[in-house]
Amino acid sequence: MFQTFEAQSSPDQGPPRLASLRGLMAQKGFDAFLVPRADAHQGEYVTPRDARLGWLTGFSGSAGFCAVLADVAGIFVDGRYRVQVRAQVADVYTPVHWPETQLADWLAEQLPPGGTLAYDPWLHTVSEVAELQEKLTGFELVATDNLVDAIWEDQPATPDAPFTAHALEHAGEPHDTKRKRLSADMKESAAVLTLPDSIAWLLNIRGTDIARNPVPQAFAVLHHDGRVDLFTGVGKADDIADHLGPDVTVQDMDSFLPALASLNGKILIDKRTCPDKVATALKAAGCDVVQGQDPCILPKACKNDTEIAGAKAAHDRDAVAMVRFLAWLDSEAPKGGLTEIDVVKALEGFRMQTNALRDISFETICGAGPNGAIVHYRVTEDTNRPVAQNDLLLVDSGGQYIDGTTDITRTMAIGTPTDEHKTCYTRVLQGMIAISRIRFPQGVGGQHIDALARAPLWMAGQDYDHGTGHGVGSYLSVHEGPQGIHRRSEVALQKGMILSNEPGYYREDAFGIRIENLIVVTDAPALAGGDDRDMLWFDTLTYVPFDRRLIDAALLTDAERDWIDRYHTDTLSLLASRLDAQTRDWLTKACAPL
Amino acid sequence: MFQTFEAQSSPDQGPPRLASLRGLMAQKGFDAFLVPRADAHQGEYVTPRDARLGWLTGFSGSAGFCAVLADVAGIFVDGRYRVQVRAQVADVYTPVHWPETQLADWLAEQLPPGGTLAYDPWLHTVSEVAELQEKLTGFELVATDNLVDAIWEDQPATPDAPFTAHALEHAGEPHDTKRKRLSADMKESAAVLTLPDSIAWLLNIRGTDIARNPVPQAFAVLHHDGRVDLFTGVGKADDIADHLGPDVTVQDMDSFLPALASLNGKILIDKRTCPDKVATALKAAGCDVVQGQDPCILPKACKNDTEIAGAKAAHDRDAVAMVRFLAWLDSEAPKGGLTEIDVVKALEGFRMQTNALRDISFETICGAGPNGAIVHYRVTEDTNRPVAQNDLLLVDSGGQYIDGTTDITRTMAIGTPTDEHKTCYTRVLQGMIAISRIRFPQGVGGQHIDALARAPLWMAGQDYDHGTGHGVGSYLSVHEGPQGIHRRSEVALQKGMILSNEPGYYREDAFGIRIENLIVVTDAPALAGGDDRDMLWFDTLTYVPFDRRLIDAALLTDAERDWIDRYHTDTLSLLASRLDAQTRDWLTKACAPL
Repeated sequence: MFQTFEAQSSPDQGPPRLASLRGLMAQKGFDAFLVPRADAHQGEYVTPRDARLGWLTGFSGSAGFCAVLADVAGIFVDGRYRVQVRAQVADVYTPVHWPETQLADWLAEQLPPGGTLAYDPWLHTVSEVAELQEKLTGFELVATDNLVDAIWEDQPATPDAPFTAHALEHAGEPHDTKRKRLSADMKESAAVLTLPDSIAWLLNIRGTDIARNPVPQAFAVLHHDGRVDLFTGVGKADDIADHLGPDVTVQDMDSFLPALASLNGKILIDKRTCPDKVATALKAAGCDVVQGQDPCILPKACKNDTEIAGAKAAHDRDAVAMVRFLAWLDSEAPKGGLTEIDVVKALEGFRMQTNALRDISFETICGAGPNGAIVHYRVTEDTNRPVAQNDLLLVDSGGQYIDGTTDITRTMAIGTPTDEHKTCYTRVLQGMIAISRIRFPQGVGGQHIDALARAPLWMAGQDYDHGTGHGVGSYLSVHEGPQGIHRRSEVALQKGMILSNEPGYYREDAFGIRIENLIVVTDAPALAGGDDRDMLWFDTLTYVPFDRRLIDAALLTDAERDWIDRYHTDTLSLLASRLDAQTRDWLTKACAPL
Repeated sequence: MFQTFEAQSSPDQGPPRLASLRGLMAQKGFDAFLVPRADAHQGEYVTPRDARLGWLTGFSGSAGFCAVLADVAGIFVDGRYRVQVRAQVADVYTPVHWPETQLADWLAEQLPPGGTLAYDPWLHTVSEVAELQEKLTGFELVATDNLVDAIWEDQPATPDAPFTAHALEHAGEPHDTKRKRLSADMKESAAVLTLPDSIAWLLNIRGTDIARNPVPQAFAVLHHDGRVDLFTGVGKADDIADHLGPDVTVQDMDSFLPALASLNGKILIDKRTCPDKVATALKAAGCDVVQGQDPCILPKACKNDTEIAGAKAAHDRDAVAMVRFLAWLDSEAPKGGLTEIDVVKALEGFRMQTNALRDISFETICGAGPNGAIVHYRVTEDTNRPVAQNDLLLVDSGGQYIDGTTDITRTMAIGTPTDEHKTCYTRVLQGMIAISRIRFPQGVGGQHIDALARAPLWMAGQDYDHGTGHGVGSYLSVHEGPQGIHRRSEVALQKGMILSNEPGYYREDAFGIRIENLIVVTDAPALAGGDDRDMLWFDTLTYVPFDRRLIDAALLTDAERDWIDRYHTDTLSLLASRLDAQTRDWLTKACAPL
């Protein structure tokens, strides 16, 4: 099992650790110190060594930070974690609503006049520090070695597992071609890369440093001639020397700062993700620091034909596991006695039986009844709930395969659904279908089509408080930018981008509904009578049946009904030959026309 | 008649005027001089005195500019005017595709090394000049008196018509309340207002300086204590001294620069519309110039109850004229012999018969057959086309009434429409209905819902190359920001904002379809089963029937069909009592259920 179910932390250890940190702060003369969740690579997951926020406070969420002062310690978390933070941290920590309350505004009120704010410049981005500097005039900002590391006696070591080469049959483009086409477009003499998935994509390498994300912990410098300097732990890249070839030099992490100091001319950094430490080092070396987007981000997002073929293979493989799981659930749930943890274990078991699962792509979200309404719910032994009759069960999960990353949500009726369950489920499905069917011209971004997924709910006075879709990597992070389907996603949708399409509806303390397929942007075929303009649409990657018991066909338009029936027909023809007779039987019924 | 039909300019006079301008440039030692369409107030319309671009080049479009050098004169126009510019200007002018080609980039190629670019700092905004300065390093930018004014011997005088007070029964809020609530929110010691419609709204005044837009030509300074200094032509505000009261001082336009020089502290300007001259004067006076949005823009956009009631009254009045026009068209068109100009004259006549028309709100767009496909078509004697059988006729028009500004487009079948006409018309109508019906939560902007209007066309491989909607003023400009329904409209839709809802479809050289109602953002009533969250929707202001002959009811959903039938029922009950028996008869048939 990849997933575990113990409650990851308890509030008890927070107070003594906080006292110890405050002692060190006093010794150093710091009025405040920042402890973010992030590591130097700003990813969604961190290594155990970098889990400083969790160690200090007990809070286990994937975003947030703590601002420690002598008499108050604010723990800043967003709407997803308001309830969780209260359960996980002791009352020496004061939860702060973020981003409603901005760190700089809060600090300006808490700090003594002229007070000193200390931070670890590896863990904060250039943008973050610039904002603090702009807003905290009258205070002193001091970059320091990490104070948590200084008091954390049994802090885990940095992971030392070796990197692997990501074969051309999966990557679709050799790394020398990638390096050359990126550097050909570069106006600077070099770009500093600090995002592990950018480096993974650029060099066609993968790692096991971070759970769920097969990325390498590394930094890199891409030079204007296409050469790359890769900085990582000693020995981690020894096995891939041949793969990297002569134009990629491997150096120890300790060499990174000296290497930055040896650069000159214009150097590109991405201020939204680049550690403040890197920019400071470049400026100290006299470089002209240019702010722009990490040059790997957009090309990585636009998957090539090999990556898309891999994604289809991974999704078909994953769909077999999902269908076996759904058939199992349908036979087991009526017997009673199932819990959320049983369900998570069973699902991971079916994925393991593909013999191709490298990892799950995130901790499975499995919420029965009211737990389904907690958008980022993760079941633990403490919260584990029986899968009860006449409840809805929401399961959001995915797998990491060598050829692709999957992410799928299905919501199932256990026993008999209510009319309200059915009405709401049908509206969510209508939103998902609207995105699945839409054609759109070049230039349209996710911000422009998000409303299509919400319109059926909006018309009923309902909505959901999360985006409709996020970008997905290719055997990389299940959350990848810049593409997305939400109100703030400004980038135009481009051919090859893989996204999730996952509208939902949540009734607090009652039920949660989410339906998610992955989709990929592709050219829409020309239509008779259509304009002479290129249009795009989405190809669906995920083929797993929806729960027909939850669909109120009377609410559907003909086009929506046809879409569902065709989707189910396609699902059956795609998967039938890969299933045992009993599961095939189940799937045939699940895919019957409405 | 407000509208005229002569071709407004001819190419012949361009070459001698250009030669004269170049002579003056050589004398002054300028390598380039900029001649924009804009005046110092950056409005859509300008006075005859400010029509420098038209006088110099012959181009009569509402946006564009000319960059004159010794051996090339680039005339920059956008996609709307590509065809028109070629017909209107002599070949001494070189049309440049704008904004595809940016002025600074073009100038950098055309200017000699170290060359001098001269511009009139009243006619270019702070943003424009800043962009030129940033991009044109290595060249000299020189602010100068206007060179066109120096060579334009019979340049018309500045208009001197008096301002009028906009009565409280129409404005809904006294100007002292407006001044006080705006200044209460101001962090600066004063704000410089350069937009006539901002000043009109703030002081509840109107003017006749500009055709189609009842705004005053003026500048103003709003002080932090709510006092206003108003700068305009001598005597123009004499009649409204009582209305303005003691806290609004009136000064001559010549006093504006000295008054800016006497300001100090933080002064707010809106760099997107403020003349460069104003910012320069403030900086010379030692002020701390703060860039922000003109503080009138958002409050002006959110109409109060009185303004909304006025808009309804104006729209109902205008609808009577429109219905009489449509009935007339239905009886006259079959006889043959009608031209576009006949139609425009008849429509303006019906509006005049309301005895309340102050002006038309823009030049009526009346395009028969292929002319309908020219989005910003304006008929002249030269282009006047017969309204032929079996063609579509697109009429986009509006009126300025003391209580509100209208803007409506209807597309009519003359004779028998083709199936393609009907299919395309129905898709456009479905888009208009989608906006008319949608409910949406707080925070949603026009950029997020634009796609709802396009989805029916997109699904058929079609689209239109203009926004879905623009803001509309209250007896002010028919094009008003910041609200809009298009991909780049970032402001959240807020209660009281009036917008157009006008999807279209255009087949070049064949036909054009546009359907436009005005709508106003209002609270949506709560729905049973809906969330506990406030939602907004649109109230429709325009009630004039759609052409039922062009609707293919088989393409509609039940909800769309119901919406149309209800709209027609409401139209009939709203207008029937105001019509003569014959027109009422026509309307009854036009409003029959589908």
